[in-house]
Amino acid sequence: MEVDEMMRKFQLDHRSGEVLVTVLDADGEPLSDREVVVEQRGHAFSFGNIGFDFLDGAPTERASRLADLWFDVFNTATLPFYWSDFEPERGHPQTRRLHQAAEWFAGHGCRVKGHPLVWHTLAPDWLRDAPVDEIETTVRRRIRREVAGFADVVHTWDAINEAVIMPVFRNEEHPNAITRLARERGRIATVRLAFEEARATDPTATLILNDFDMSSAYECLIEGLLEAGIKIDALGLQSHMHQGYWGEERTWEVLERFARFGLPLHMSETTLVSGDLMPPEIDDLNDYQVPSWPSTPKGEDRQADEIVRHYRTLLSHPSVQAITYWGITDEGAWLGAPCGLVRADGTPKPAYDALRSLVKGQWWLPPTELRTDDAGRIRVRGFLGDYRLRHNGGTADLAIAVPGETTATLRLAGQS
Amino acid sequence: MEVDEMMRKFQLDHRSGEVLVTVLDADGEPLSDREVVVEQRGHAFSFGNIGFDFLDGAPTERASRLADLWFDVFNTATLPFYWSDFEPERGHPQTRRLHQAAEWFAGHGCRVKGHPLVWHTLAPDWLRDAPVDEIETTVRRRIRREVAGFADVVHTWDAINEAVIMPVFRNEEHPNAITRLARERGRIATVRLAFEEARATDPTATLILNDFDMSSAYECLIEGLLEAGIKIDALGLQSHMHQGYWGEERTWEVLERFARFGLPLHMSETTLVSGDLMPPEIDDLNDYQVPSWPSTPKGEDRQADEIVRHYRTLLSHPSVQAITYWGITDEGAWLGAPCGLVRADGTPKPAYDALRSLVKGQWWLPPTELRTDDAGRIRVRGFLGDYRLRHNGGTADLAIAVPGETTATLRLAGQS
Repeated sequence: MEVDEMMRKFQLDHRSGEVLVTVLDADGEPLSDREVVVEQRGHAFSFGNIGFDFLDGAPTERASRLADLWFDVFNTATLPFYWSDFEPERGHPQTRRLHQAAEWFAGHGCRVKGHPLVWHTLAPDWLRDAPVDEIETTVRRRIRREVAGFADVVHTWDAINEAVIMPVFRNEEHPNAITRLARERGRIATVRLAFEEARATDPTATLILNDFDMSSAYECLIEGLLEAGIKIDALGLQSHMHQGYWGEERTWEVLERFARFGLPLHMSETTLVSGDLMPPEIDDLNDYQVPSWPSTPKGEDRQADEIVRHYRTLLSHPSVQAITYWGITDEGAWLGAPCGLVRADGTPKPAYDALRSLVKGQWWLPPTELRTDDAGRIRVRGFLGDYRLRHNGGTADLAIAVPGETTATLRLAGQS
Repeated sequence: MEVDEMMRKFQLDHRSGEVLVTVLDADGEPLSDREVVVEQRGHAFSFGNIGFDFLDGAPTERASRLADLWFDVFNTATLPFYWSDFEPERGHPQTRRLHQAAEWFAGHGCRVKGHPLVWHTLAPDWLRDAPVDEIETTVRRRIRREVAGFADVVHTWDAINEAVIMPVFRNEEHPNAITRLARERGRIATVRLAFEEARATDPTATLILNDFDMSSAYECLIEGLLEAGIKIDALGLQSHMHQGYWGEERTWEVLERFARFGLPLHMSETTLVSGDLMPPEIDDLNDYQVPSWPSTPKGEDRQADEIVRHYRTLLSHPSVQAITYWGITDEGAWLGAPCGLVRADGTPKPAYDALRSLVKGQWWLPPTELRTDDAGRIRVRGFLGDYRLRHNGGTADLAIAVPGETTATLRLAGQS
């Protein structure tokens, strides 16, 4: 794509709306010529991050400070349902602990996403040598159990993760149960199984097909799944950029290729390191093991610059519905990579501040005084999301739900 | 795969059979205790090559010598149906010329394959800017026209070529008609269209899905097509090895991945250069343009060694049903590459002799005397294919059609 064309596309009109609000007082009369304070309360867009550091809430002072930073930017938490960790011993799943974690996030006003229901990595060892029929039955049962058990708090699931490589995954000595299932039944049958069980258990859940493979292989798989009549709610595109930021052009090209299917895109696993980059010749990121991978001042500046460019690019594409950044802190980060937004010592990196200044700054309406006209009307412009109006102790809630201009009539409640 | 396991697999029992033949004389009596000459006349396996050098037959002495070399090794000719060449002006296809070429090959006892019915490269310029509906109609009509027009001589078609890259092909300034069709309708719909029209026109034809992409993308596409109920007769796997011989291990790994679908595999476009290798960083082979790419003595030795190893590996895999070598002579070869089996001066390279010594040597039964027993029986062992028995001026034809042991009773005809 030409840079010109790209720049023209990098606009965010589709992310915001304008509502002509008629404000009524508690008696239902138009509130003419008064100062009303309007403030944004939430984003419709999912600004997500993993919630792995808070599986037991935030019991310490240190954890509590980290949680404050987390909640100040993010509104969607991804929780880990890696099967071998979730059910280390057959029949003894960690349902209680995870459910409490999900409730904790929900209690903070967060949406919660479960990751993933089916994946070949971290498949349980106790299922490794089972006959394929038994694997299938056990996988189906596990999906039903998790989706049912969390239906009250988890409304979005990665139904299946990395199906492209699943049947040909070889980075292990003995093939795991899920790879054996996918190899024998095929990718489409395995994806169908995951969506079928999850959908039957919770028809209201948003079910995602998630992959790291951004090549034609993923496109071909998606085409095949749609042709096979499998209902996919969103496409998850991983973007672990340990080997370097993709850049606007490649990012846009990827978005365009996957937007073609008419499904919402979830940028499901986004990382940008604030230290040295992983060498390009590493194929499976898990193969890269270094004793120490520090965050550096130069790397932190680069990460801050890139996170702004990346989020701007992603939000400017109309198909993108969610972004999940993969990590809040460098402490215990995947591969030891400095991909967090907060240093291991708990201080925010420049990337944290930069992202916050988008999500809660440039893309956010702080408390703002507006004066109603004779008919009690004000114009509220802002990013799609939830807003609150206040006047003299009374409040009314407003949602900017669609781009463009709309109208609403709100009656203040609790006005003194 | 372990080398041990591979070596165990590199055997050719599934390529040969043994027939206990009872030979009867012209009167129907067992021909006891006589010398019978048995010789192979043809291979069941398709040893193919392109027939592009003989579209007008072999009108010159030089062409005739080249044709002799061709027919001495190969039994299946691939003819070019590249649309922009075949129909340079809309409504004026080269049907007559191509049909004569097909008849010429058939007259030499060859099977003929058409390549390809649908492909984005060499799509006609006159269709480039047409609306997609018109493209579809025109493509459907072209498929019906070619398949019907050649049904008497062409029984195998590459129904569609390189569908994986088709909708995202970008190596051109303005997108061609076929890419536009595939982008709008999707890969599966475009493949369906090709198979549907060809199948409806000639239900007896062998229809092939052909691609150069050996990655998971092709696997995913195939899965999707099979799930969508499209009947594919064989999978074509290109193997232009301008950048170096794949080696036994990679070749076997590719074969295993694609054999999983239970369809015959056609190694549709095989090349090994007898000169310098193309640098590995070249992505689209068409991008590599050199003023001169000579065949060298060292390169010719390497090519001869590799062609033997490659054909042995391919034949040892039970799913492989055909191999098409891509080029007989270096003269006018694709990209100017020295991938022919015959030098530009008309002399055979070592690779030619090496391949011939397999196809007509090690894998071939030359005229051989066998003595019938008291009951008139002989045991004929050989590669699957057609054989002829001779005795005293009488002949009888025998087919070794399946591996393992079978029986047959043959009556000599024309015996003096």
